[in-house]
Amino acid sequence: MDLFKNEGKIFVISGPSGSGKSTIANALLEEPDTVFSISMTTRKIREGEVDGVNYYFVTDEEYDRTVAEGGFLEHAEIYNHKYGTPKKPALENLKKGLNVILEIEMQGALQVKESYPDAVLIFVLPPSLKILRERIENRGTDSKEEIDKRMAATVKELDYLKDYDYYIVNDIKEVAVETVKNIMRIEKQKVKNLPANFIEEYIKE
Amino acid sequence: MDLFKNEGKIFVISGPSGSGKSTIANALLEEPDTVFSISMTTRKIREGEVDGVNYYFVTDEEYDRTVAEGGFLEHAEIYNHKYGTPKKPALENLKKGLNVILEIEMQGALQVKESYPDAVLIFVLPPSLKILRERIENRGTDSKEEIDKRMAATVKELDYLKDYDYYIVNDIKEVAVETVKNIMRIEKQKVKNLPANFIEEYIKE
Repeated sequence: MDLFKNEGKIFVISGPSGSGKSTIANALLEEPDTVFSISMTTRKIREGEVDGVNYYFVTDEEYDRTVAEGGFLEHAEIYNHKYGTPKKPALENLKKGLNVILEIEMQGALQVKESYPDAVLIFVLPPSLKILRERIENRGTDSKEEIDKRMAATVKELDYLKDYDYYIVNDIKEVAVETVKNIMRIEKQKVKNLPANFIEEYIKE
Repeated sequence: MDLFKNEGKIFVISGPSGSGKSTIANALLEEPDTVFSISMTTRKIREGEVDGVNYYFVTDEEYDRTVAEGGFLEHAEIYNHKYGTPKKPALENLKKGLNVILEIEMQGALQVKESYPDAVLIFVLPPSLKILRERIENRGTDSKEEIDKRMAATVKELDYLKDYDYYIVNDIKEVAVETVKNIMRIEKQKVKNLPANFIEEYIKE
């Protein structure tokens, strides 16, 4: 019903490394009128990644220029690399009625909430820290030392949970995905999401 | 997971006469750990209604005594009859982790929100006023004069929509029911709904 149609919403998905946040974020694109925000980063492209799809891979100079122009919705430095969410395409998509998915870490998520309070922040939790460690170990890509570092980082990241709107326990992937999709659907049912002239139009109809 | 288990929530369902709010409210009992709040009323029992199931049918004296004792979460007079939601059983059920469904009109809903801000207010809308009128006419229980009065009341009731958390368009009943069930599920995923000691316990696990 067009009467209920309004601007899109920003959904921010964060979670510790190994929480499965990327899988969940990607699955959200199955929802109608939903697009991904593509971040800029100065980190090197990894195998399997595509420039302009996973990230815009840019030089430090290009990144710094965007910061100077106020062109980021959020930006942060993590593990010596810089990441940022370009503001313009995100706001344009919202105007078109599209949901915009941001998969970013916690510092960035809070910056988004500050600059755009209507953003919905979702924190993906592994069922337990023990299971998270097992998952990272099974991936077989990180040394024991790196895993220890990641686990310590994860414990610190939990401090950010209190600033998020929703938490999702990623135990069974399909359930976690469906729950986040439901958050997206239900956020649309909020009265504050209705167009300003809704009642006026509704009575006329 | 017990770690995520917390108090129950109050869900308030309101809507114009003929919006189908009762059908929706009743269907919510299919959700786990969900109970109905049974209101007290001074109005006469109708055919098919059961005392202690649909309402506690009480005298004016019993009702007034409960008001004097501060025993209502909300109470109001509608169409010359008095209605109230007993406070004690509702709060006891929340403590037990049960969701409590209240099917009440708008004045009462706002009283609940005031006395219990965590209550989630859901407004059931008919697809349009035209369809609402047709539905009431097809019911064949009301005179034209009564229907006109109800329609005028409905337009006034829309003023309360802005104070509600969610709206539901009751076009296809099954869809409306599923949407409200999703609201109930998703409200549980709010970070503010987690136990205060959650992170502490989560790290230990």
